[in-house]
Amino acid sequence: MTVEWDGGGLDVVGIGNAIVDVLSHSDEAFLASHGLNKGTMTLIDTDRAEALYAAMGPGVEVSGGSAANTMAALASLGGAGGFIGKVRDDQLGGIFAHDMRAGGTVFRAAPASEGPPTARCLIFVTPDAQRTMATFLGVSVQFAPADLDLELVKAGKVTYLEGYLWDAEPAKKAFLEAAKAAHTAGRKVALSLSDPFCVERHRGAFRQLIEGHVDILFANEAEIVSLYQTDSFDAALQRARGHCEVVALTRSENGSIILQGEEVHVVDAITLGEVVDTTGAGDAYAAGFLYGYTRGHGLHDCGRLGSLCAGEAISHMGPRPERPLKRLAAEKLGL
Amino acid sequence: MTVEWDGGGLDVVGIGNAIVDVLSHSDEAFLASHGLNKGTMTLIDTDRAEALYAAMGPGVEVSGGSAANTMAALASLGGAGGFIGKVRDDQLGGIFAHDMRAGGTVFRAAPASEGPPTARCLIFVTPDAQRTMATFLGVSVQFAPADLDLELVKAGKVTYLEGYLWDAEPAKKAFLEAAKAAHTAGRKVALSLSDPFCVERHRGAFRQLIEGHVDILFANEAEIVSLYQTDSFDAALQRARGHCEVVALTRSENGSIILQGEEVHVVDAITLGEVVDTTGAGDAYAAGFLYGYTRGHGLHDCGRLGSLCAGEAISHMGPRPERPLKRLAAEKLGL
Repeated sequence: MTVEWDGGGLDVVGIGNAIVDVLSHSDEAFLASHGLNKGTMTLIDTDRAEALYAAMGPGVEVSGGSAANTMAALASLGGAGGFIGKVRDDQLGGIFAHDMRAGGTVFRAAPASEGPPTARCLIFVTPDAQRTMATFLGVSVQFAPADLDLELVKAGKVTYLEGYLWDAEPAKKAFLEAAKAAHTAGRKVALSLSDPFCVERHRGAFRQLIEGHVDILFANEAEIVSLYQTDSFDAALQRARGHCEVVALTRSENGSIILQGEEVHVVDAITLGEVVDTTGAGDAYAAGFLYGYTRGHGLHDCGRLGSLCAGEAISHMGPRPERPLKRLAAEKLGL
Repeated sequence: MTVEWDGGGLDVVGIGNAIVDVLSHSDEAFLASHGLNKGTMTLIDTDRAEALYAAMGPGVEVSGGSAANTMAALASLGGAGGFIGKVRDDQLGGIFAHDMRAGGTVFRAAPASEGPPTARCLIFVTPDAQRTMATFLGVSVQFAPADLDLELVKAGKVTYLEGYLWDAEPAKKAFLEAAKAAHTAGRKVALSLSDPFCVERHRGAFRQLIEGHVDILFANEAEIVSLYQTDSFDAALQRARGHCEVVALTRSENGSIILQGEEVHVVDAITLGEVVDTTGAGDAYAAGFLYGYTRGHGLHDCGRLGSLCAGEAISHMGPRPERPLKRLAAEKLGL
């Protein structure tokens, strides 16, 4: 199945790094000996990527990228989505583009014919199912305003941006331009904070961004605590209220808290059997939430959809859905 | 972990097509509409590979290739193995080479710097867990005697050849040359018949080969029945006796039958939970069997090791082991 865009309205348009993941089982000693911070994302250059890959066990390749994973899960729910990101005209770029389109997401970008190769993320899954990531951004580091597909942005009820984009200067500009274009078109802007270290690197800028440009904010406990430099999740939650129209805070096995004005919703996590690999859990949560939001569901149901998608994501290796989420949502939630 | 060969003895050296698999869930209607024969392997050219990939759902990439999968499982059991096959200097070739070495198999071949890209196999997994394969051989079609690493062949107690090699003329020559080199060095030669259509394409040649060059034969029911053009498995079994030193006939959920002279062993299948994807089951069986054989175990235990490895292979998507087989063999079989 390949999706040709007919120019019609879309539920969500995601903008982010276009990455192919390489997943492998690993142990804590491996992470320590290679200076990787468990549970987080580290940016690596070509040399480090080669050395780390050589040290890594046999891998499984699957398309990834935070916002791209969100769009793949949204499509699996039956949502209409588009993705904007940059790949090279190499084999991994071909795999990424195929997987987006074959999953039902509009992806119109022509691959770059020069520059570094398509981005890849080495993901080490420890026996506790936690994932630790080392990302070689490759050509994705060159993502710039010229790569924005503003027609697509204007067509989406929500433009969804990953915080990881803030790591590269041209992507940051594209990020702001996309947010402005979305608002000018009367659309909403959503942001995921992505990673606590990413928040640490860009704390001031993220706070300004959230206050000025973001309608829907996704963050996990570590990220929101880092953003507001508070001691507790509860203190961070109080700070987050009011800055955005909606704030969805995920808490792993403790589910999520959703805030909108004076409204507060506490939503339970959902697991589907054994937890195998947490890669993509946050991305999938955002997909479920945004599907519910753009389809007019109440906030509690948006959260339940998020929990279900996250539950599916962590039930197997890799970030993208392995089961049709639309059917799962009907069966498990009646939504 | 990367394996540098110290020139010492090896248990098994596999020779086969070096392929990266692209796996996706599919239904019977898809197979029918694309003219694919369920449960078998079809060779496809560049144009058909592109069209079929465009029609395929989102995929998971994992290194494959029949003999290569066998070597990966042998290494996971703790066996010492080498693999001989041909990749291009492209991203998929890099992935294949990495996965062989990282899993513990000696793989010394330099990638080709010209010619078609690295081989890939599109694998469609239907809801009954059966796999149907469409293989684009790419540079692997050029595998020729010059690509043989005879030092490695001589070092292996057993040289293991996949029947699929017989599909390309230069590979066929390499096949015979490897078999001769192994025998000259006082080693054993093992062959897997690979696929019933492959047997149909090369029936006469395979029979000559088996009578003249093969010590250990692996085949499943459909393959052995096709080889001897008999009506029943039992009739084929009687024909197979005596042509080789050992014949191991696999029968899916009915386990396997092992023949050596007057000896007959009936071995049960082993499953580890739900059957998810049968890709690589035969390859894994051969690995378990050959590990047992080269380590001096009795034939019944060789069969049990084969059953266990096959059981692990079908418990997840993709042909290569996801759990360390050495530990599994100790836990489940005490071997």
